[in-house]
Amino acid sequence: MSKIRVAVFGASGYAGEELLRLLLRHNQAEIAAITSRKNAGEPVSTVFPRFTGLPLKFIAPDEAMKNCDFDAAILALPHGLATEFAIPLLEKGVKVFDISADFRLKSTAKYEEYYKTPHPSPELLKQAVYGQPETHREELKNADLVACAGCYPTSCILPTVPLLKSGLVSPEGIVVASCSGCTGAGRKVDLPYIFPECNESIRAYSPVGHRHLPEIEQEMALAAGVPEVSINFIPHLAPMNRGINSTILLNAMPECTLEKVGEVLNAAYANETFVRVLPAKRCADTKYVFMTNCCEIGYFFDSHTNKVIVTSCIDNLTKGAAGQAIQCMNIRFGIDESTGLL
Amino acid sequence: MSKIRVAVFGASGYAGEELLRLLLRHNQAEIAAITSRKNAGEPVSTVFPRFTGLPLKFIAPDEAMKNCDFDAAILALPHGLATEFAIPLLEKGVKVFDISADFRLKSTAKYEEYYKTPHPSPELLKQAVYGQPETHREELKNADLVACAGCYPTSCILPTVPLLKSGLVSPEGIVVASCSGCTGAGRKVDLPYIFPECNESIRAYSPVGHRHLPEIEQEMALAAGVPEVSINFIPHLAPMNRGINSTILLNAMPECTLEKVGEVLNAAYANETFVRVLPAKRCADTKYVFMTNCCEIGYFFDSHTNKVIVTSCIDNLTKGAAGQAIQCMNIRFGIDESTGLL
Amino acid sequence: MSKIRVAVFGASGYAGEELLRLLLRHNQAEIAAITSRKNAGEPVSTVFPRFTGLPLKFIAPDEAMKNCDFDAAILALPHGLATEFAIPLLEKGVKVFDISADFRLKSTAKYEEYYKTPHPSPELLKQAVYGQPETHREELKNADLVACAGCYPTSCILPTVPLLKSGLVSPEGIVVASCSGCTGAGRKVDLPYIFPECNESIRAYSPVGHRHLPEIEQEMALAAGVPEVSINFIPHLAPMNRGINSTILLNAMPECTLEKVGEVLNAAYANETFVRVLPAKRCADTKYVFMTNCCEIGYFFDSHTNKVIVTSCIDNLTKGAAGQAIQCMNIRFGIDESTGLL
Amino acid sequence: MSKIRVAVFGASGYAGEELLRLLLRHNQAEIAAITSRKNAGEPVSTVFPRFTGLPLKFIAPDEAMKNCDFDAAILALPHGLATEFAIPLLEKGVKVFDISADFRLKSTAKYEEYYKTPHPSPELLKQAVYGQPETHREELKNADLVACAGCYPTSCILPTVPLLKSGLVSPEGIVVASCSGCTGAGRKVDLPYIFPECNESIRAYSPVGHRHLPEIEQEMALAAGVPEVSINFIPHLAPMNRGINSTILLNAMPECTLEKVGEVLNAAYANETFVRVLPAKRCADTKYVFMTNCCEIGYFFDSHTNKVIVTSCIDNLTKGAAGQAIQCMNIRFGIDESTGLL
Repeated sequence: MSKIRVAVFGASGYAGEELLRLLLRHNQAEIAAITSRKNAGEPVSTVFPRFTGLPLKFIAPDEAMKNCDFDAAILALPHGLATEFAIPLLEKGVKVFDISADFRLKSTAKYEEYYKTPHPSPELLKQAVYGQPETHREELKNADLVACAGCYPTSCILPTVPLLKSGLVSPEGIVVASCSGCTGAGRKVDLPYIFPECNESIRAYSPVGHRHLPEIEQEMALAAGVPEVSINFIPHLAPMNRGINSTILLNAMPECTLEKVGEVLNAAYANETFVRVLPAKRCADTKYVFMTNCCEIGYFFDSHTNKVIVTSCIDNLTKGAAGQAIQCMNIRFGIDESTGLL
Repeated sequence: MSKIRVAVFGASGYAGEELLRLLLRHNQAEIAAITSRKNAGEPVSTVFPRFTGLPLKFIAPDEAMKNCDFDAAILALPHGLATEFAIPLLEKGVKVFDISADFRLKSTAKYEEYYKTPHPSPELLKQAVYGQPETHREELKNADLVACAGCYPTSCILPTVPLLKSGLVSPEGIVVASCSGCTGAGRKVDLPYIFPECNESIRAYSPVGHRHLPEIEQEMALAAGVPEVSINFIPHLAPMNRGINSTILLNAMPECTLEKVGEVLNAAYANETFVRVLPAKRCADTKYVFMTNCCEIGYFFDSHTNKVIVTSCIDNLTKGAAGQAIQCMNIRFGIDESTGLL
Repeated sequence: MSKIRVAVFGASGYAGEELLRLLLRHNQAEIAAITSRKNAGEPVSTVFPRFTGLPLKFIAPDEAMKNCDFDAAILALPHGLATEFAIPLLEKGVKVFDISADFRLKSTAKYEEYYKTPHPSPELLKQAVYGQPETHREELKNADLVACAGCYPTSCILPTVPLLKSGLVSPEGIVVASCSGCTGAGRKVDLPYIFPECNESIRAYSPVGHRHLPEIEQEMALAAGVPEVSINFIPHLAPMNRGINSTILLNAMPECTLEKVGEVLNAAYANETFVRVLPAKRCADTKYVFMTNCCEIGYFFDSHTNKVIVTSCIDNLTKGAAGQAIQCMNIRFGIDESTGLL
Repeated sequence: MSKIRVAVFGASGYAGEELLRLLLRHNQAEIAAITSRKNAGEPVSTVFPRFTGLPLKFIAPDEAMKNCDFDAAILALPHGLATEFAIPLLEKGVKVFDISADFRLKSTAKYEEYYKTPHPSPELLKQAVYGQPETHREELKNADLVACAGCYPTSCILPTVPLLKSGLVSPEGIVVASCSGCTGAGRKVDLPYIFPECNESIRAYSPVGHRHLPEIEQEMALAAGVPEVSINFIPHLAPMNRGINSTILLNAMPECTLEKVGEVLNAAYANETFVRVLPAKRCADTKYVFMTNCCEIGYFFDSHTNKVIVTSCIDNLTKGAAGQAIQCMNIRFGIDESTGLL
């Protein structure tokens, strides 16, 4: 079989760097184009010295669009720009994997509520498949436009979807407290992100109305089979490069026990390469998923408050962005899902 | 007035080091004895090189007990040892400030539940005053035995007690997610605490039944005026040296608004030197309380889930241990509460 | 005695923050003005939340210059701006302590070589006293314009000046390798300084011709009693907030021994509050000078290459900037040198 | 071709973990045995949770020796134990790759000087080939016992050997200042290595007589074609997990220029997969070799002191240990040198 030819749009950020790192060791894909408006014409190594010596060059996005000699396009663009690229790419038959949040929400009303502007292409929203393989694998097999799941949402969805589906926990009153490493803020040059402002600092941000909130709620509602779910999601910035830890509290239903929680989680992920359910009463640790495409899940039952507590860790740049996009691409192109990701 | 003569028992840990650092710049106290069983006879600088050149020496605790020529004893001993020292010290008229958890719980049943052993001196438990100045100042003025509040509990109590007292929030369904720097684990030489195991790692631990849980619940119940409160308290270890960030979710009562939350918090702490209430909708940051005795509090109202969210930061070694012990001591000895702490 | 009234010019950087922190606990100085062009009119707490609640406000530098009701001005301005302020301040009788490098080099030729522009006020260069108290204390007592020593230079000068004066080591072939925490780069918002670019990174920079090089050479030549000294000085950026570690190799003269090195260093600093000479064969550690005005010095003799090796640590913001400026000010105003610095 | 069957002896440290990580993605090798005296019988995931779900188990070293059904043994044992295993393994025809320092020094006298004990098997010393592929590739092709180069030595040898061979620099007066991340100390549970003792700390250690010194000198002398070289090598511990940065100063010979240095380095490494020579006057950064088998080299010429300055970065666990061992193994078994390492 010939290799999948992949274009990476907007490759000068951390997700772009991770995409290149992973694609370079993917033996059934090859990099066909790497775009950056700002760095067009430069070797990729001027931005990412780790790629020195490799024949990788940024080109302008327009040039990539003109030639369009690739099978898949992974969009790692800033918020709001995906539509502009997705429409012509889809017209030309390119499969599109968008890492941004642009196509993740099914509800245009929610989109407008959280982004303060109407969605530029509601018809694409409808078409887009949510790019979270463990929970949407079947749909992904035929998707032309994939809205890859966000980093925080991935860490929240994986440990909770099986529990919500099982009915062991209630979709009401869910609380999520997450901590993310600083690459989660992107390669953003802004005072709050310089080293001395982040080191020896833990701080919550956007504890009300974070943009990942409606995405998490959408998938939880879907799993619970209810029209809507309202949760609390509180992200924190932690002094590390990579990793997300999400601690999630769910109200237990009367029949719920620790054992049943374990059974449901283990059954759900027994055949999954990228989800690791820990033995009962052990906490997940970002250290153990660092630079991997895995999600590690720990679970507890607190009889004193009647809550199920799950802790979940991913690498925000791999399973939370670039790795999951490639996993989706592998599924779409019918090759082994884990190719290039182990 | 002559200076308060202070003995520090068990001074070879991080809380001990912080006590010495603070006492050395306290102009109304002097260090009368510094004990360490293991390091007796050595200059303090062998353990803490920052004190090189100062005439500070560890002595054996027995020697300190024999002479007992001090007015105050601050106990920074491992769990379970405080009783043994507190009894003879109190008999000799020394005021005792215990930094451990030994005397914090009023309920001997709770003590036994969480420590798996009966309390060795229930009568002392009764006598001990909870050493959290902003919420127990009056009692502290005459206390002979002070059970200084824990680090996590301090970060939880300060932002919630005024709200619980006001009736704006319910004592039911409270959730706390906290992150602590690694000095919170003490100067413990154990694999999980070596640098490569903590760096680039965020992990929850003891998400069910942490020993600080009953202490937090005790003070919340007291504030709410109810016999008992059951909360979730989930601590995490973060890759930094000092600092605790607690994010706390409380169910809002019908009349609650963001403005009222702000009014209650600002009124409660208007005259407090060591509590800083941020403007509405700003998150606390451990960076801004680093090596200070302050607690920084931010507050939010989430109308979508009807929750009050407070974020609260302290330095675990200062306000969470040594600084607060000295603040209690200052109150007990009738001097300006902030002496040595600004 | 009335307090020294101090103005801090350019207070919105890390050195400015440290100056305010130290001046607030200085019991013989008071803050008379805090300037920031950009933040004029705002409370200081908008930039540094740790000062919330204190009545500190930024004013425009022009306003401060107009009133000029202060005894001392500490300039923490970007490179090249000090002359503009120093001239009118000195005319009005204000003592000026400049934290920048503008007045440190005695040689206008060296200045031009390293800064690529002629010095704007060569006459002030002549007048300026080098603000390194342990090596220039007498001159500082009458100085009107003090060019406070740089951070790297302070860490290099303190361990080497006594050795060079003693003749135990040669002024030829000196090599310095230094590591600095990220506040050393200032509060600079630039890609190389965001957290993910600094964390898990050690990198040299400006290994040839760093601007602190001629300053270090000037003071070494002075100590050695030779017209010129040429050394290698190689700075590195390390993933921490504060601290400089300098490792310095010097060629031993025939009569040199480890014991003699120890004697010379101990004799030089026996009466110094802010220099701590470690026992022989122990390495200095930035951890032990963190947030202090101390310099810690360790020394070794390598008979295999006939070198004296000294390791030296300071806190770049305290002894390397704000603390040393205040130490100089204390000396100039005839008060105890350590006031506000212990 | 059938896969190389590999046993990893002493796999419970950080180098062991890295070996397993790399071998698992090596498509021409398979793991035949993983030994740990302490953890024998346990799944590898109890020590390294990242391997949860994989069928990897520790066995006792004796058991591995008895069956001995493998082609290659990589020894990641504590210092001094390699002889005991190497002798019987070699007798059975197993190729041995030792990661420890046990067989690196050709001189038994040097060994005794630095290790304070006679070498237990001088005949093996003679037989051992130094496991640094870029400088000893030909010998490695037939080596039965490989003494893999140390982490610090690798970072020092790669940038200096071509320069010493070229005669552009002198073998006299070389100075090396290195910084290593904390995994360099191994998985050692000792007070100086717990997080709060390493974070915000930079400290030199063993600045005279570090055990890697004679190894570096041996290889430099070999390159320079002189019987002996005496250098200064000063290691520092830096607050990061992985990475070594070595800054090396060499005396330039009269004909030396920046351009010639660049030519020599580029010529030496033009065909090397794992050495990246930066353009002139750019500094290497550990960040860009993180978790790779690459060495990044930057070079400068300081005409003011007539020195060549090279900066060199590797990942201490990959190129400095596990990766380089696998590279040596690939060479020995005649497969593509970079297999499993890209």
